[in-house]
Amino acid sequence: MEPAAIITLTTDFGLVDEYVGVLKGVLLSRAPQARLVDISHGVEPQGIAQASMLLAAAAPYFPAGTIHLAVVDPGVGTSRQLIALRADGQFLVGPDNGIFTPFLENAEAVVIDSSRHSLKPVSSTFHGRDILAPAAAALANAVPLLELGTTIPVETLTKLSPPLLQIDTIHGTITGAVMLGDHFGNLTTNIHHRHLVARGQEPAGLRICLRGHQIDGLAATYGERPAGTLLALINSRGYLELAVAMGSAARLTGAANGDQVKVFLHPG
Amino acid sequence: MEPAAIITLTTDFGLVDEYVGVLKGVLLSRAPQARLVDISHGVEPQGIAQASMLLAAAAPYFPAGTIHLAVVDPGVGTSRQLIALRADGQFLVGPDNGIFTPFLENAEAVVIDSSRHSLKPVSSTFHGRDILAPAAAALANAVPLLELGTTIPVETLTKLSPPLLQIDTIHGTITGAVMLGDHFGNLTTNIHHRHLVARGQEPAGLRICLRGHQIDGLAATYGERPAGTLLALINSRGYLELAVAMGSAARLTGAANGDQVKVFLHPG
Amino acid sequence: MEPAAIITLTTDFGLVDEYVGVLKGVLLSRAPQARLVDISHGVEPQGIAQASMLLAAAAPYFPAGTIHLAVVDPGVGTSRQLIALRADGQFLVGPDNGIFTPFLENAEAVVIDSSRHSLKPVSSTFHGRDILAPAAAALANAVPLLELGTTIPVETLTKLSPPLLQIDTIHGTITGAVMLGDHFGNLTTNIHHRHLVARGQEPAGLRICLRGHQIDGLAATYGERPAGTLLALINSRGYLELAVAMGSAARLTGAANGDQVKVFLHPG
Repeated sequence: MEPAAIITLTTDFGLVDEYVGVLKGVLLSRAPQARLVDISHGVEPQGIAQASMLLAAAAPYFPAGTIHLAVVDPGVGTSRQLIALRADGQFLVGPDNGIFTPFLENAEAVVIDSSRHSLKPVSSTFHGRDILAPAAAALANAVPLLELGTTIPVETLTKLSPPLLQIDTIHGTITGAVMLGDHFGNLTTNIHHRHLVARGQEPAGLRICLRGHQIDGLAATYGERPAGTLLALINSRGYLELAVAMGSAARLTGAANGDQVKVFLHPG
Repeated sequence: MEPAAIITLTTDFGLVDEYVGVLKGVLLSRAPQARLVDISHGVEPQGIAQASMLLAAAAPYFPAGTIHLAVVDPGVGTSRQLIALRADGQFLVGPDNGIFTPFLENAEAVVIDSSRHSLKPVSSTFHGRDILAPAAAALANAVPLLELGTTIPVETLTKLSPPLLQIDTIHGTITGAVMLGDHFGNLTTNIHHRHLVARGQEPAGLRICLRGHQIDGLAATYGERPAGTLLALINSRGYLELAVAMGSAARLTGAANGDQVKVFLHPG
Repeated sequence: MEPAAIITLTTDFGLVDEYVGVLKGVLLSRAPQARLVDISHGVEPQGIAQASMLLAAAAPYFPAGTIHLAVVDPGVGTSRQLIALRADGQFLVGPDNGIFTPFLENAEAVVIDSSRHSLKPVSSTFHGRDILAPAAAALANAVPLLELGTTIPVETLTKLSPPLLQIDTIHGTITGAVMLGDHFGNLTTNIHHRHLVARGQEPAGLRICLRGHQIDGLAATYGERPAGTLLALINSRGYLELAVAMGSAARLTGAANGDQVKVFLHPG
């Protein structure tokens, strides 16, 4: 027997109100066999970019056929569309507000315009419950993507602007930005491991600058620097990260999302 | 094959301690097939009225046969009783302290006095673990309600006093109260959509007053007012709600639970 | 049919980032039938002792065969080892940093050194994802413990130092410490019920002192003292606890973990 479909949930609902429970009630009413997994309900209110990054980081660890339901939807009830995608063998269901930017390449998309699966009546304030969760449940029940709505070219979907990333190969510098602070105060940047590697080799002596702090060289892991030391490493998401052993880089540097990070590949 | 029973959990335990995990350990030890869904563990300590509202808002989205386990139980170990209810085809299990007030009409109730299902020994401080979770697991295993204890007339169960709600049809005013602020700072009132509708019609020009703020007319959705604007709408729970587009009505108004909300149906 | 294995999760990851979701993605990719239960993701960063206490309190309520995955791992990527244990018919999987101290007696242990189950490549910063979750999934798939690695004597594993606990039977005093404040502000000590019982009897008139506060006698339950009163009882974990009826003992006393608690068994 094939294992039951997995539906993941990513929202900005928090965990105090009943909203996440309501989504799960709708999902299990329609697809009682589905496995539900929370990615995050701690996305900051209206944090579309944050949700987008969390989803991009989590999806690769889920099996083919997984359905990612994402409800960060400040435009609920306005003319923004609701969409469902198939990308890399998985499904994504949510508003067309940029939340699925990292998945659009090679994706197949439909605008959810069939009301066949929706709750009746559809409210004007909670489409996650009334339209999106039923659509995710339908996919879990093996309803084909194309039955949820009308095919739409992915080029016409909303995309988030990519954050600043300048690679100057002549001077050997990379200018990027802090993208996301995590629970430990680790600061993920938008500079990927592949940007740092030249001819298959990690640079021997790179230098990283952030808000007046300077870090020389990459650590392999948190524990190889003394506690309290600001360090840089390639994190488990594959990106350059600033961290403090047994501490918080966010607190130590005071850095926030969007702050500039500069890498000198051949300093000195 | 019938789908496995769903057991929902609503507590004031928070998510740091092991208490919720312990409830789930007991539930799955007794009813390994049950599906567990968290409604909220962020109810404020001893927040019986809050838990009651969350449950009332969530239950309609769960299928028949769902078992709602609610453990907000400041009176644990005192003479307060533990009860199990059947209402609208679902079950509720918890203390008799008013937490099930919204479900009492048309309910069938028993006092849980059989120790057949309880953990042994029963502690005096955690009946959620020792008595209520085993009772919920028993219901998930299709044990009949009446085998959990002794029938009790619902009229004798503890009820929360309904909050202030005055409807003055002569002057066309409704006086209610803020009932619950949510994660977004949206303020749910106890004024239901049906209170605002006259002869099947929403009022054209109603006015809402809260702590010196005045809102004219109902919005259909959050996104149809400029960001930062205080607005009013009928929310996904069916009640009049004060909200701020891309912001927090709780912060903007400073309102707290219990604050008076006044609606003028025919102002001017 | 045997019920599917339960895998519990205890981490210091918090619930904002995608890290817990990633662990679950790996677990369900490998063991789609497994039941996943969160113990806590609110362990303070690097809170090995706290995680250890939560696990010890929760494990007894889970059925035989349950697999407890614990990822509080500040030493990730250093020479600290990863281990899997069988203890009391359950399994534990995590770093060898003392987190499993309460389980070591009578345990059977292996160092996880087989890469057969690991994700490829193994990162140097997230062994929870790359090695531990796959090992837990393997156990859920009935892979024998000994196939995960090499047997190691439990005496050689890392143990946390036990906190101060002095029992003076001549003067009838016990000196212990606050071990853990919970969500309600209840303060669990390391003084167990059995330390207070003499010849099968609870002491009639004991006195408890904490930071200048004095409590006479044990309450049976929170509700039997007036709201706001500092009281002491044996809590649902079996330990002496300081609590405030309808309030917070942590706030009232200002006590923190490690603060001394003194019990006089025969004061007066």
